[in-house]
Amino acid sequence: MRATRVVQKILSNYEGETPGVKANLCRMLMNGKLGGTGKMIILPVDQGFEHGPARSFAPNPPAYDPHYHYQLAIDAGLNAFAAPLGMLEAGADTFAGQIPTILKVNSANSLHPSESAKTQAITASVDDALRVGAGAIGFTIYPGSSAGLTMFSDIAEMRREAAAKGIATVIWSYPRGEALDKDGETAIDIAAYAAQIAALLGAHIIKIKLSTDHLSLPEAKKVYEAEGINISTQAARVADCMRSAFDGRRIVVFSGGSKKSADSVYDDARAIRDGGGNGSIIGRNSFQRDRADAMDMLNKLMNIYKGKE
Amino acid sequence: MRATRVVQKILSNYEGETPGVKANLCRMLMNGKLGGTGKMIILPVDQGFEHGPARSFAPNPPAYDPHYHYQLAIDAGLNAFAAPLGMLEAGADTFAGQIPTILKVNSANSLHPSESAKTQAITASVDDALRVGAGAIGFTIYPGSSAGLTMFSDIAEMRREAAAKGIATVIWSYPRGEALDKDGETAIDIAAYAAQIAALLGAHIIKIKLSTDHLSLPEAKKVYEAEGINISTQAARVADCMRSAFDGRRIVVFSGGSKKSADSVYDDARAIRDGGGNGSIIGRNSFQRDRADAMDMLNKLMNIYKGKE
Amino acid sequence: MRATRVVQKILSNYEGETPGVKANLCRMLMNGKLGGTGKMIILPVDQGFEHGPARSFAPNPPAYDPHYHYQLAIDAGLNAFAAPLGMLEAGADTFAGQIPTILKVNSANSLHPSESAKTQAITASVDDALRVGAGAIGFTIYPGSSAGLTMFSDIAEMRREAAAKGIATVIWSYPRGEALDKDGETAIDIAAYAAQIAALLGAHIIKIKLSTDHLSLPEAKKVYEAEGINISTQAARVADCMRSAFDGRRIVVFSGGSKKSADSVYDDARAIRDGGGNGSIIGRNSFQRDRADAMDMLNKLMNIYKGKE
Amino acid sequence: MRATRVVQKILSNYEGETPGVKANLCRMLMNGKLGGTGKMIILPVDQGFEHGPARSFAPNPPAYDPHYHYQLAIDAGLNAFAAPLGMLEAGADTFAGQIPTILKVNSANSLHPSESAKTQAITASVDDALRVGAGAIGFTIYPGSSAGLTMFSDIAEMRREAAAKGIATVIWSYPRGEALDKDGETAIDIAAYAAQIAALLGAHIIKIKLSTDHLSLPEAKKVYEAEGINISTQAARVADCMRSAFDGRRIVVFSGGSKKSADSVYDDARAIRDGGGNGSIIGRNSFQRDRADAMDMLNKLMNIYKGKE
Amino acid sequence: MRATRVVQKILSNYEGETPGVKANLCRMLMNGKLGGTGKMIILPVDQGFEHGPARSFAPNPPAYDPHYHYQLAIDAGLNAFAAPLGMLEAGADTFAGQIPTILKVNSANSLHPSESAKTQAITASVDDALRVGAGAIGFTIYPGSSAGLTMFSDIAEMRREAAAKGIATVIWSYPRGEALDKDGETAIDIAAYAAQIAALLGAHIIKIKLSTDHLSLPEAKKVYEAEGINISTQAARVADCMRSAFDGRRIVVFSGGSKKSADSVYDDARAIRDGGGNGSIIGRNSFQRDRADAMDMLNKLMNIYKGKE
Repeated sequence: MRATRVVQKILSNYEGETPGVKANLCRMLMNGKLGGTGKMIILPVDQGFEHGPARSFAPNPPAYDPHYHYQLAIDAGLNAFAAPLGMLEAGADTFAGQIPTILKVNSANSLHPSESAKTQAITASVDDALRVGAGAIGFTIYPGSSAGLTMFSDIAEMRREAAAKGIATVIWSYPRGEALDKDGETAIDIAAYAAQIAALLGAHIIKIKLSTDHLSLPEAKKVYEAEGINISTQAARVADCMRSAFDGRRIVVFSGGSKKSADSVYDDARAIRDGGGNGSIIGRNSFQRDRADAMDMLNKLMNIYKGKE
Repeated sequence: MRATRVVQKILSNYEGETPGVKANLCRMLMNGKLGGTGKMIILPVDQGFEHGPARSFAPNPPAYDPHYHYQLAIDAGLNAFAAPLGMLEAGADTFAGQIPTILKVNSANSLHPSESAKTQAITASVDDALRVGAGAIGFTIYPGSSAGLTMFSDIAEMRREAAAKGIATVIWSYPRGEALDKDGETAIDIAAYAAQIAALLGAHIIKIKLSTDHLSLPEAKKVYEAEGINISTQAARVADCMRSAFDGRRIVVFSGGSKKSADSVYDDARAIRDGGGNGSIIGRNSFQRDRADAMDMLNKLMNIYKGKE
Repeated sequence: MRATRVVQKILSNYEGETPGVKANLCRMLMNGKLGGTGKMIILPVDQGFEHGPARSFAPNPPAYDPHYHYQLAIDAGLNAFAAPLGMLEAGADTFAGQIPTILKVNSANSLHPSESAKTQAITASVDDALRVGAGAIGFTIYPGSSAGLTMFSDIAEMRREAAAKGIATVIWSYPRGEALDKDGETAIDIAAYAAQIAALLGAHIIKIKLSTDHLSLPEAKKVYEAEGINISTQAARVADCMRSAFDGRRIVVFSGGSKKSADSVYDDARAIRDGGGNGSIIGRNSFQRDRADAMDMLNKLMNIYKGKE
Repeated sequence: MRATRVVQKILSNYEGETPGVKANLCRMLMNGKLGGTGKMIILPVDQGFEHGPARSFAPNPPAYDPHYHYQLAIDAGLNAFAAPLGMLEAGADTFAGQIPTILKVNSANSLHPSESAKTQAITASVDDALRVGAGAIGFTIYPGSSAGLTMFSDIAEMRREAAAKGIATVIWSYPRGEALDKDGETAIDIAAYAAQIAALLGAHIIKIKLSTDHLSLPEAKKVYEAEGINISTQAARVADCMRSAFDGRRIVVFSGGSKKSADSVYDDARAIRDGGGNGSIIGRNSFQRDRADAMDMLNKLMNIYKGKE
Repeated sequence: MRATRVVQKILSNYEGETPGVKANLCRMLMNGKLGGTGKMIILPVDQGFEHGPARSFAPNPPAYDPHYHYQLAIDAGLNAFAAPLGMLEAGADTFAGQIPTILKVNSANSLHPSESAKTQAITASVDDALRVGAGAIGFTIYPGSSAGLTMFSDIAEMRREAAAKGIATVIWSYPRGEALDKDGETAIDIAAYAAQIAALLGAHIIKIKLSTDHLSLPEAKKVYEAEGINISTQAARVADCMRSAFDGRRIVVFSGGSKKSADSVYDDARAIRDGGGNGSIIGRNSFQRDRADAMDMLNKLMNIYKGKE
């Protein structure tokens, strides 16, 4: 399939990258109902690891089955499906080639002692991604944790191997840890900083959270106020994050968090679109609804990104 | 030997896995008196490491000899025999090819200082498994321990090597550590979570403990109650664990714990069977009885799994 | 381009070094308006990692775009441009061959918990440098930190690989950590010691900070006073640092720190020149000014180094 | 030399082991005055590392010279000589092929801070063993130390490499560390447990200490009492340890500790013989006596093992 | 040059060592004015790393230049010159082949926080030694430090690689750390123990400090007194250290410490000579004097070792 101009423009920002990585980015950008628009919706299903099976899947029991998620992502026409190794493997053959997949290569869990340094276990490798036919690896970093530097080094190394093997890298950049209070984790200055770090680490796709208008770091607060950076609306904050991702040279998608009302999911998407963001990564808000509702919501979201709603 | 339909169905769930791994899973599923039924009984003998020789073998002194266990597993018609390296080696030649074996590649011991983080020593490798003719490696993880993430990373790496070499992976998923109190270790929400983690790590066979109707994590408790998940009987709890193992796409066997009355062992087996579990892993309850009693008990257990009792 | 005598003289100090490294040093020394003079100005842009994007780029918003920095370094006629992996990659193709680049292979960040040992994450490799066409790697060490020895070992290993592959090594030697108070970080005895350590670790180019006339280590203070070492002026202190870099056998460039008045930047350069230093590494003082101002300042600085002002 | 029946029987217990390892075990079992009896006396000289040179050698100054020990082991007709790398190397050429040697690959020392976790430094490798012509590596583990699991993993890995290269493995299993009090270190339940762990780790020869009738672990004490295991004499305790070494399928030798009267050394040997143990590892009690006395004592010990005294 | 008998005798103690290592030892033993006598004087210049440049070189400013030290060692007719990587490299080409060199591969520094465990950073490799034409690596161990075991393991590994590549190993065995008080660091029992550990680790040349008649370890003190070991003079203590180095089978050189009067340097040398030691390693006492004085002193020292003064 011939890439659209907008997709070619995005790909041109990945200067000197291997054709293999570009091909995989292209496949994601050209797949599904948003194919060719430069916008993306990704279905991530790592909540079974993070929160356990009941909290994740009991609200919609068919979701206990990995095939459910593959099928949902395919039928809804999303750009990609992201999950840990075991879940991807459970449908890797049945759905081979039907949807781009992202192998989540590290994972946290709610059973880990809370007093330990915040980090994740590396649970899969680049070669696993090749083996299960995934086009990208996904890796979470926690800027703000005392384990953060190790996470940065780990993904720097995996990214290098991945790119050499034609696999793209998605970084979930989630500020968390000893250096941050609860408000800081979603503050706009921290979110923009998280995007910058992921970009500097060489992420091809950056996943961050939507932010509040709180400013957490005193030194940063001074600059935001002195320079009059607009952070009054979610769209303005998305724009600040895009600027912090090499002035828009990197794809940034935003996550929605825990399940909430459909309307607020739509509002988020409009803000992402208006701020110049590339799209959503939307897990619990899709698979914890029953399938028909989820299909409707995802369809409406894609219309928002197309500018139709 | 031609695999039965039920075994073929089970194997088909391991999508894209290497033929070598499938062959080893098939050999275990087709071996012994439960061969072809999709049910399994495995004899594990790592208690000498975990509890010391006297506590393990003095009640039935012939069991000090590794050959005793090989012979018991063969004569009783079990599916497989699992043990640490030294014990497997001690009979590897005499019993070569007579029973599928699982090499336990990490081990804990009762001499380890209790204030250390809960973990196990890695005491064997995938190449050791190949060398002694084992068809699978066995690895214990402790979700809930501060060392848990390292254990996850270690088995993820060994599993990858094992699968590439045609060796299957059995994960003993035993919640334990700083994050859990005694009740939590056997709570149903934790047991189901343990099954999910093992499945996501890519286990081919998952070994967990039978659970109580206690709910340990407040967030999980809310969901179990809100969604009305049935956990009132052992069979219902087994079913919840099977659901948490990719809706039954993974083999799950349950362990019985310390020696107890024959009747309660039988009750456990009926609950496992009725909840859709794949079988039992039964150590002390077999080898701490004298051989004749053990043979009777194992025979009766297999009849229960065949639905005859 | 034929190397000037002064450059050939400098290169001759790198005895037994690989021709690949010498070629890359030569390219930097011969590039731009200071080409051939033995003096250098390098543009470093790692502040996005160290301080976050707003603090770094909001004062001059075009600087959010990595291309801005490449273009500034090229148009101003600087010797080299240094940045972390993501930023170099973002313009690696567009500006290939137009300016020598230095890949910063480790990075700190302001989100890291302040109570952790002072260190940086290794975020790129020697092979990354080769891939993006960089002629050198840049690495920060923190003498005085409890993590300092590990940083020394890490750069010793990377330097060996780099030199074998024809890549030069620049060490940012920044005293910091548990062993030093605020005054000690910029004391002249510590600065000279930092230069010595970098030289002994095999740095081809040493980057240190300008120092004060404070003497921090009691044992060193005794010697400075007993031997009557002149540290009364910035130029005298630069000379002491040059002496500490193998009596001038190594290239040493000095950094200016946070943004300040143009006049004080010029004064610094005159001191560096008069003390026999090789030049400046100047980041915030260039890219936080608007482009026209920055071009003027850089031009004037180069004239100072040429002895014209 | 043709192996005797009793030696062939012992070797047959090492099922599936490489011929190289069996050859080295055979050489030790067939060497010296006990050659062919299935009994062994080994001379270990690592006390220079453990206690320093004066405490080890000043009582008999010729023992400062490594050649002294080689010559003593050869002239007395012992089965093997064990020492750290430097000492073996010091006579490796002069005595090449005259006595089987065991390279001690890890070592402790009395200068190590007592508050550190109990462990040893790895000071030699399997390839060192090959190079100096040693037939086995020797490795100490400390069950009961917080560093114990790491020691288990380290020897598991070295043993694998050693066996693949035809080198046998001797494990010194010495309970020590935070989990044990002084009485526990020599309690019979702990000694038997130590033998079991070494066997499970794949040791070809196990070295433990003679034990007391103390029972240290409450759970084990219960079983020893309930099952009426005889631990009333040293011979009975040796028998319990042999049982715990796979019911006698592994060679177990016992160490005597610090220098004591000749009679009590003989009593120990009779107990080892009567309990079915394979022999003694006897260091200070031989080389701290003058040579003539040591030769007499060793001769008498060998007669005891032959059943002549 | 044909090796003298005394040198051949020394070399014969290195049994089974590679000809490459023996050749390098031979070159050092045959070089300079002491060539062929079996005695050595080595010039070590790592004080710039350990104490900083001013404390090391300001008393004699030409010493800031690495060439100064090469030239001094050559002109004085010493046996070898030892320094860290950067310093050796700075003259490696100019002085190639004119003097045997020892690459110091680990280094400490005075900026390291004093509350950290005593250890050194590994700052060079065996391949670096080959590359710069060094004939030996030099490595410091700190018996008595909680980091000591790691240092032992590190040098054991580097020594193995070095010997395989024909490079000799010099161990600086300097007791230091949590287990030792100030008096203990120079006590004779500790010095002899340090020599023994270095010998057991496989050092070809051992460097220790001259000691006092203090006895630090109670267990050792008992033995020294019981056996009546003579430690009353420096020569007697040197003899005790030589005995502890495999009864003289290893080369041991002694270091002098901080700058002191010429006469006390000469007294030290006479004691080393009379006790059977192999020579001196003499840094600050040579290069902190002006060149003419240093040349005189070194000349006189060599005459002492030749027995002429």
